Amino acid sequence: MFRSHTLFILFLLFSIFIKVEAQRHPGLTLTQDGLKIIKKNINHAPLFKITYNDVKAEVDKWMLSGISVPLPKDMPGGFSHEVHKKNYLMLQAAGNIYQISGEKKYASNIHKVLLAYAQLYPGLSKHPSTRSYAPGKIFWQCLNDANWLVYVSQAYDCIYESLSQTERSYLETNLFRPFADFLSIENPAFYNRIHNHSTWGNAAVGMMALVMGDKDLLDRAMYGIKGMSALSEFDNDGGRIEINKKAGFLAQIDDAFSPDGYYFEGPYYQRYALSPFILFSQALANCKPELQIFSYRDHILKKAVTSLINLSDSKGQFFPVNDAQKGMSIHSRELIAAVDAVYFYDGKDPSLLSIAAQQGIVTLDLSGFETARAIHQGKVKSFIKNSINFRDGSDGKGGGISVLRSQSGNREFSCCFKYGVQGSGHGHFDRLSFSLYLDDEEILQDYGSARWVNIDQKQGGIYLKENQTWAKQTIAHNTVTINEKSQFNGNTQNGELHASDYFFSDFSNPDIKIVSAKDSRAYAGVELHRTLFMVHDDLFKQPILIDIFGITSDSSVNADLPFHFKTQYMASSFPIDVETTSLKTLGSSSGYQHLWKEGSGKLNQSPYSVTWFSDGMFTTQYGLSDDDDEVIFARIGANDPDFNLRKEPLYIHRKKNKKNAVFVNVICTHGAYNPVDEIPNQPYSASVKIKLKCHNQQYTIAEITTADKNIWTIMISHDDVGLNKVHRYEVGNLKFEWEKPISIVKTIK
Amino acid sequence: MFRSHTLFILFLLFSIFIKVEAQRHPGLTLTQDGLKIIKKNINHAPLFKITYNDVKAEVDKWMLSGISVPLPKDMPGGFSHEVHKKNYLMLQAAGNIYQISGEKKYASNIHKVLLAYAQLYPGLSKHPSTRSYAPGKIFWQCLNDANWLVYVSQAYDCIYESLSQTERSYLETNLFRPFADFLSIENPAFYNRIHNHSTWGNAAVGMMALVMGDKDLLDRAMYGIKGMSALSEFDNDGGRIEINKKAGFLAQIDDAFSPDGYYFEGPYYQRYALSPFILFSQALANCKPELQIFSYRDHILKKAVTSLINLSDSKGQFFPVNDAQKGMSIHSRELIAAVDAVYFYDGKDPSLLSIAAQQGIVTLDLSGFETARAIHQGKVKSFIKNSINFRDGSDGKGGGISVLRSQSGNREFSCCFKYGVQGSGHGHFDRLSFSLYLDDEEILQDYGSARWVNIDQKQGGIYLKENQTWAKQTIAHNTVTINEKSQFNGNTQNGELHASDYFFSDFSNPDIKIVSAKDSRAYAGVELHRTLFMVHDDLFKQPILIDIFGITSDSSVNADLPFHFKTQYMASSFPIDVETTSLKTLGSSSGYQHLWKEGSGKLNQSPYSVTWFSDGMFTTQYGLSDDDDEVIFARIGANDPDFNLRKEPLYIHRKKNKKNAVFVNVICTHGAYNPVDEIPNQPYSASVKIKLKCHNQQYTIAEITTADKNIWTIMISHDDVGLNKVHRYEVGNLKFEWEKPISIVKTIK
Repeated sequence: MFRSHTLFILFLLFSIFIKVEAQRHPGLTLTQDGLKIIKKNINHAPLFKITYNDVKAEVDKWMLSGISVPLPKDMPGGFSHEVHKKNYLMLQAAGNIYQISGEKKYASNIHKVLLAYAQLYPGLSKHPSTRSYAPGKIFWQCLNDANWLVYVSQAYDCIYESLSQTERSYLETNLFRPFADFLSIENPAFYNRIHNHSTWGNAAVGMMALVMGDKDLLDRAMYGIKGMSALSEFDNDGGRIEINKKAGFLAQIDDAFSPDGYYFEGPYYQRYALSPFILFSQALANCKPELQIFSYRDHILKKAVTSLINLSDSKGQFFPVNDAQKGMSIHSRELIAAVDAVYFYDGKDPSLLSIAAQQGIVTLDLSGFETARAIHQGKVKSFIKNSINFRDGSDGKGGGISVLRSQSGNREFSCCFKYGVQGSGHGHFDRLSFSLYLDDEEILQDYGSARWVNIDQKQGGIYLKENQTWAKQTIAHNTVTINEKSQFNGNTQNGELHASDYFFSDFSNPDIKIVSAKDSRAYAGVELHRTLFMVHDDLFKQPILIDIFGITSDSSVNADLPFHFKTQYMASSFPIDVETTSLKTLGSSSGYQHLWKEGSGKLNQSPYSVTWFSDGMFTTQYGLSDDDDEVIFARIGANDPDFNLRKEPLYIHRKKNKKNAVFVNVICTHGAYNPVDEIPNQPYSASVKIKLKCHNQQYTIAEITTADKNIWTIMISHDDVGLNKVHRYEVGNLKFEWEKPISIVKTIK
Repeated sequence: MFRSHTLFILFLLFSIFIKVEAQRHPGLTLTQDGLKIIKKNINHAPLFKITYNDVKAEVDKWMLSGISVPLPKDMPGGFSHEVHKKNYLMLQAAGNIYQISGEKKYASNIHKVLLAYAQLYPGLSKHPSTRSYAPGKIFWQCLNDANWLVYVSQAYDCIYESLSQTERSYLETNLFRPFADFLSIENPAFYNRIHNHSTWGNAAVGMMALVMGDKDLLDRAMYGIKGMSALSEFDNDGGRIEINKKAGFLAQIDDAFSPDGYYFEGPYYQRYALSPFILFSQALANCKPELQIFSYRDHILKKAVTSLINLSDSKGQFFPVNDAQKGMSIHSRELIAAVDAVYFYDGKDPSLLSIAAQQGIVTLDLSGFETARAIHQGKVKSFIKNSINFRDGSDGKGGGISVLRSQSGNREFSCCFKYGVQGSGHGHFDRLSFSLYLDDEEILQDYGSARWVNIDQKQGGIYLKENQTWAKQTIAHNTVTINEKSQFNGNTQNGELHASDYFFSDFSNPDIKIVSAKDSRAYAGVELHRTLFMVHDDLFKQPILIDIFGITSDSSVNADLPFHFKTQYMASSFPIDVETTSLKTLGSSSGYQHLWKEGSGKLNQSPYSVTWFSDGMFTTQYGLSDDDDEVIFARIGANDPDFNLRKEPLYIHRKKNKKNAVFVNVICTHGAYNPVDEIPNQPYSASVKIKLKCHNQQYTIAEITTADKNIWTIMISHDDVGLNKVHRYEVGNLKFEWEKPISIVKTIK
């Protein structure tokens, strides 16, 4: 309906300022019309019924344990934090159970808990912990207080009609309005910027505004605090706080996601950041359907959901980009709610049903119900995850992130390649790095964050200092470190200034996927150009990954390319001088201080190879090498006084004093072994030869021969992205000629 | 029928020497009568039919790849080894497929392969590898050659009737008889001792004897080589080779297992050692039913099978006692065959059907068929694994091994406690050690062996030198090391001389399981007494393990008790001085040379505690400590020039200069955490206090208080095993009085 953004805004202004009608209750996420449909048809949506029974059992257990509203005191993982978190989740759930079951005990219990909060809240000053730039009252940061209000607004909506006017007035006066004011006008640094924290704040204030029918609060949610002047400071993650005049929920939608629905902090945070967008949008869709919020910005919310699904491995675990605790997945409660909402409110895309079916849980509202009913009706279509690029940056001009995928048999080979923006305070110095998977098993890993979310013993679950000193550093990622310094010299503010550059991709051939990106600002005077080819070679059961990483520098530099392999070294083509009786650190800064040097070897033949074994399979890496190159074996864990780091292995291909260098690697996963049969199947890879035909500022040309049979000729132009230009290069009696900037051609010996 | 061992032997002698009738073919493991039943009823045994189709598909694939009988050359993992191994497995399988399907192409292919072997064999000298004390001709050791003959005898039996007399004569003259002679009279050190290698030899010779109807060979199989004189040497594993007059299959049965069916090398080898017993016994049961071989020695073969099942975790993976590659399980082909055979030939115990159903595969003979049919008929009963003791040593006087088990909810807590004989060349210096599990997750691990079975890159899959220098050493196990030296000073021959001693056990109370054992010879002048209690405490969701390890020494000693925990350290009650910039080895011998010292801490309060996290759960260990005790954190991996070891963590509770010391530990598994919910559930254990009331040469009395509520009083007499004697001890105004040598009493504060 609103194809033009401006038109939409005008309409929105009009509609909100004109129409603030009396809200029906429940009407926020659960609605009266929805309840009628649910109650009548509940037996036709088994997944909904199962979820309902599970949630009801959990709520019953929570109610049996009595009401607990302790004085705020602890960090995540600690008693008061976990009780208050459990409370808001259970209050929201109990509200749904009350409305669906009609049993008054749920409403009565919710009311009692809310009364306890209403008695506690007016006497609270800020949380005693001082670790946050914006401490909350219930929790250590406003962010968690906003979570509380988002969930509690739904609970209040559900019991609204069961309360007298006096009871409502008491709760609103003592708890909800002061709570909303605290989160907004009393904390502009939290509320009034363009940031995921603020989105939670906007949603919290806006959802409670809708329940209470409070026009002023709703305006504050949609457009930010009136009359704010801009100011600037830094948050805990080192991110810049720009307290803007431009603020509020709509500005967040404009800014949070790239035009492809990618969120600059990566999928771990995207899942979390998405939640207030979805929940408040769902409330707006119910209360203000005329806004068509799910169509806003060309259906950006649906794009955000599908991009998140695409940024996961074959088991739905998110690629651990930037600060990310590994294992977070499409099974998170945030994505369960998002999938159901986007399915229901934006076009009933049947491929989303296959994700909902995998999740096995739906939300206890009409969107969850219709999702479950459609699954039961057999409307499910597969959600196909193909190779895909996502632009980064809210304008789409901040580089991007790509996923290469190939299926072989019933297994999926996937590679997540990052060349986007810094990712603010949660960003890592990992331009042009990738992580590589067979199904959900890591072949080359990204460390993720150094953090145990919510685990009290690990400093209350906050980011550990090793997150800054190790996990963010360049050497912690599968990309090149120049002169043993991290990109942008490890300075987040500098990193924020520049994104890497998308260069080329081609996914048109199902057997050959190509993606290429460049960076010329991560290191001053150094141009990095990495191209990845995921190739089906008939001599290998699994696809192979060919990786060409060119470096052109104004001055001679050392270049370290690490391989963060998993578990168990098997063999190498070169002798390793292993440290047997003492270990020293590999360096003193930029993450190198966290590495024990376990050994090193001079590369005496090219290509060299290293084989390792993990998760029942073998991987062999073949690498082009020069005469004075070496490989260093290292292990994470030095300078780790609290045993915070995982003591995992890596090896580093080191090139010294190069102005113009190229790493050419072929990574082959092969074979299998299990301890019951004890029969190794292909513990050796087919042979791989690598010849460099040319590497200069203009071109890189390499020839890769597998099993002395298939020859893959790779031709890369570093500068010209024109798709029709013909490139020509001659060396001796060899002539190379190709179109497009990058080409790969197979010949058979 | 034969209740007396002697009577049985007499009958056996009589029967074998009198009756060597013409053998019907097939009649060895597959029989003509069996085939009739199978063919008629195959649709009533789905598991059999599935297995048949799977095996047929595998055999078809093998046949399509053509016949390959290469010149013997390689070690395990190498080409010729793996091809010959595949050949014998596929020949046996193809024989079964031929008989069941009636398709002649299978017989014809088997014949062709056997002809190729018959052409190759006469020209072979010993295998070029010289690593074995008894090299084979096809493989690097006679043992593998014997495997070949055991399987090929079955293939020959299946095609026997399809061959002409001339064809049979050619194969027998050029291949089978010289093969059997080579394995026996030409290799007495392999064949004529009491050892699992010899059992394979006996079975190989005996099974081929039955097929060929060769009385002399059968005698040689049953009773060993006629007229051998005894001699003594050492095999590759450091085991003593006693070439005896007493030899042959029956002597092996008498000697191999303890009266409870336990095999002294541990379950990993028991699975393998069991195979020739089962296969030859099955052949004898078919060809010589009058022997009632499965009733021999009070049904020892069935006991061997059930003891093996009992020595596995909740997923059927064997406890890694002695030299054992982890992950070997009830799903091994050896145990699949053994379960079916023992079910069919010894009493049709329906609890074995639940194991067969778990295995999901049956053997392609009548025993497998009847197992599958009984499963289909719903005759399955659960195989209940209870707490259990197994005596060790062929006379049952060599100490033993115990498993404590407790179920809680749908989870199983299990502990494998070892106090048996050395276990010959595959034994570890691990007296009084245990490993601890929740389901199949290790809480405190046993390292297992340092070996990659059949992996060519790891020295052809043989035992790595670190198996001797690390895996066998005492510090690699969860037991006390005295003065940083391994038990018996790491000398296998000395270890062979003495077993540990069973002391006491009581499994009568489902909430309190007790086992206790002593050792007074592993360290000269030192008496070790360890008692384990697996206790259901209502304040813990999972059972807790209480571990009292008393040490009484003639002179002052240092005692190190390691905790081989998994994965991630969380917290400790004492400060740790962590090595941050360099690491040194913890010692120079007895396995200590393989440990990097990562840090240490003085124990400044008792009990101290350490918490770790692995596999989604937390574990806290509480330990009684003295003032000058310390804890050392270490990591495996020093002096490991080929990166052979797993770099896993441990910590060591070290007591110094004690004549009389006791370790009292409580190990509590608690809580849960997963990265999708990110909500820690009970990351802290309930509190545990430990008070020592008495520890002297006569008694140890300790009081353990959980959550300031439950008090467990533990009273141990070190000397008197009388069950009715009353023990009394007074200290101050406290009086302790108990019956039986060991008692645990719960009171509530």
